[in-house]
Amino acid sequence: MVLLRRLLGDELRRQRQRQSRTLREVSGAARVSLGYLSEVERGQKEASSELLASICTALEVPMSVLLRGVSDELALAELAASTDLSPARAAQPDVVASAA
Amino acid sequence: MVLLRRLLGDELRRQRQRQSRTLREVSGAARVSLGYLSEVERGQKEASSELLASICTALEVPMSVLLRGVSDELALAELAASTDLSPARAAQPDVVASAA
Repeated sequence: MVLLRRLLGDELRRQRQRQSRTLREVSGAARVSLGYLSEVERGQKEASSELLASICTALEVPMSVLLRGVSDELALAELAASTDLSPARAAQPDVVASAA
Repeated sequence: MVLLRRLLGDELRRQRQRQSRTLREVSGAARVSLGYLSEVERGQKEASSELLASICTALEVPMSVLLRGVSDELALAELAASTDLSPARAAQPDVVASAA
């Protein structure tokens, strides 16, 4: 299952690294603890709407831009899931039959 | 401040009503309580990533589509906020001066 908090975290980290800023700088500007921001970036904690807005303000990234990036990543993940080429699926009868 | 949970809730309700489905139907399909879903739709509760995925599955709406809609709404809200025409702002000196 693709989890929103993981993709949100990835996108937040991407935005921060693009600006060459440290966790310490952004957490200070957003008034959240460094540990909390780190957990959010790693998708281990759900950011509340208020804190997400605060982090976006600290990054000077409109939340709509952040979500657009997440939406694009999600669309790719959904596409990959719908055309699953994992070994488990490749071993299904119809695939075996077509290979015979 | 524009809150993500409020826009997410609006978008979830819009999707549900577009399908002419009741809160009871969707909460049952998503295996969340009716009260919880109602609170999420009204932006009063943050939905966890797992529950959001479950609600999207129940609505048969890819999460990327939901987030795209939210991103678009957010962009409009951000634009409105940046070109604020509220009475408080309209009464600011520079506006008064240009009207004189």
